[in-house]
Amino acid sequence: VRVGVDIGGTKTHAVALDETGRIVQQLRLPTGFGPEAVLAAAVRSVDALTGLTGLAAERFESIGVGVPGAVDHATGRVTHAVNLGLDDLDLGTELEARLGVLVRVENDVNAAAFGSFHRLGSPAGQPSDRSMAYLNLGTGLAAGLVLKGELWRGSRGAAGEIGHIPVDPHGPVCSCGQRGCLEMMASGSAVARQWPTSHPRPVEELFEAAAAGNVLALEVRRSLVENVAAAVRVLVLTVDVDFVVIGGGISSLGEPLLAAVRAVLASWAAESPFLASLELPERVAVVPVGFPAAAVGAALIGALGSGATMSGVR
Amino acid sequence: VRVGVDIGGTKTHAVALDETGRIVQQLRLPTGFGPEAVLAAAVRSVDALTGLTGLAAERFESIGVGVPGAVDHATGRVTHAVNLGLDDLDLGTELEARLGVLVRVENDVNAAAFGSFHRLGSPAGQPSDRSMAYLNLGTGLAAGLVLKGELWRGSRGAAGEIGHIPVDPHGPVCSCGQRGCLEMMASGSAVARQWPTSHPRPVEELFEAAAAGNVLALEVRRSLVENVAAAVRVLVLTVDVDFVVIGGGISSLGEPLLAAVRAVLASWAAESPFLASLELPERVAVVPVGFPAAAVGAALIGALGSGATMSGVR
Repeated sequence: VRVGVDIGGTKTHAVALDETGRIVQQLRLPTGFGPEAVLAAAVRSVDALTGLTGLAAERFESIGVGVPGAVDHATGRVTHAVNLGLDDLDLGTELEARLGVLVRVENDVNAAAFGSFHRLGSPAGQPSDRSMAYLNLGTGLAAGLVLKGELWRGSRGAAGEIGHIPVDPHGPVCSCGQRGCLEMMASGSAVARQWPTSHPRPVEELFEAAAAGNVLALEVRRSLVENVAAAVRVLVLTVDVDFVVIGGGISSLGEPLLAAVRAVLASWAAESPFLASLELPERVAVVPVGFPAAAVGAALIGALGSGATMSGVR
Repeated sequence: VRVGVDIGGTKTHAVALDETGRIVQQLRLPTGFGPEAVLAAAVRSVDALTGLTGLAAERFESIGVGVPGAVDHATGRVTHAVNLGLDDLDLGTELEARLGVLVRVENDVNAAAFGSFHRLGSPAGQPSDRSMAYLNLGTGLAAGLVLKGELWRGSRGAAGEIGHIPVDPHGPVCSCGQRGCLEMMASGSAVARQWPTSHPRPVEELFEAAAAGNVLALEVRRSLVENVAAAVRVLVLTVDVDFVVIGGGISSLGEPLLAAVRAVLASWAAESPFLASLELPERVAVVPVGFPAAAVGAALIGALGSGATMSGVR
């Protein structure tokens, strides 16, 4: 049994996988804020899995943790995880001290990329030399890359930071200091800025209002979908991955989001033989609704060590 | 001795490398137009190297060819090499028939990427797990990627086609059918559109006129340099390569171009702590003036077969 823990801004999601990578147990807990609360939630989630599986923590083959922020995957140190109140925490070391077992730590978008690849790119957990980008549409926008079955972090862990590629010289100023970043156009925060609401699922409300003909909603939806498609185009034109999987909070819209993104990509292909040759609409997918990609990916990365490769999954 | 042949739109450049990867002989011939002329130029360049090295072609350890257009590196077939008048040619097979030896064919930008990596990323030809993007500023704009010492072509050979990422929704229409593509802003054709001249080296004239205070030249140079910097940003934010090497015709400007691009990247860093953390100015270089990157890369790729990796270079 391999255990993966996805520490999110509000919830901590933990899974236990069997030897084939199938989820055998899972649970959610509130995360809390600050180092002690985050550590406690992670420990409680692992404890709960020992109860659910009937195995002591040291009987788990491996434990992996996905967490937002800048992660040094070699040391397990986490910095700049603002939403969790973690400025600088040796998360791996602290968890190992409390759990008594080795813990691997990975950035949550990378973990979700690896989990999505396991589900969609290498469904039987078999070695795969396929390549995939995972496009995370959460509060922000970022991607994770799996190249020939291996997680690609880049030279300093900045691979996939496409949210800070400017796409409109006249766009709004981003928190990063640049103007018109992709993240300002296609993310939860982009929708919140353009479609203020108290609805618990703002993008769902946005799509419903657009379907009902609301003019502002139509415009905000158009901008969102076009810029998600632009992110897909950046990923394929730069890395030429086999396919792009859309995940994150906005992806819970599922099929309507995917259909809208594909329609934009198809409209571009109609204008550009070059883009048409790349067959972008056929290369986009969404994470299956309810699939805990980051927790599953964390479990698999925990199993594989820092040089994560799907070929290591039995 | 390994032989590399770079078939360009006007010149064919051939090199012979010794076992350490050093250039021991090189020559240039006019390429001509159409399949027969292209094949004849390649054969003549190899014949000339047999004379210069005193070795028969079958004594060469390997022969590699770099050529523009869409290249199937497994079969050696070239399509859509418009500037050479090659619509569809089995270049590898045809050359093998005429030369009597195995010939590897690679896209010229990929070949130049591999040659630049050999020179700048792995200077002693040693195995290297560093990663590099080669940004080619020729008539068009495209990049080649070397990831952990290996050429990365992508799933369909489209990796590095960043010239067709739109960066300005209000920019001019590109030959690819999209609007405001990076290639329309930062390439030889972009300069030709904005700075029409009969000067043999238009970008050199442009930089001289800008230095002399010509208002149009200042504006065209600003746009060129900013968009070259934008291409560097796309490459690092997406793939996070260790460094980016600028090559192609425009790179013959050398240090003044590099200094201008670094100044733009530094000005962005001053506005964005996130970009500052990536240290982009320090990660940019230009191909040394006169270094025949594509011919050298073709020779090395010829040596290594289709799974090109620097670790195979002795």
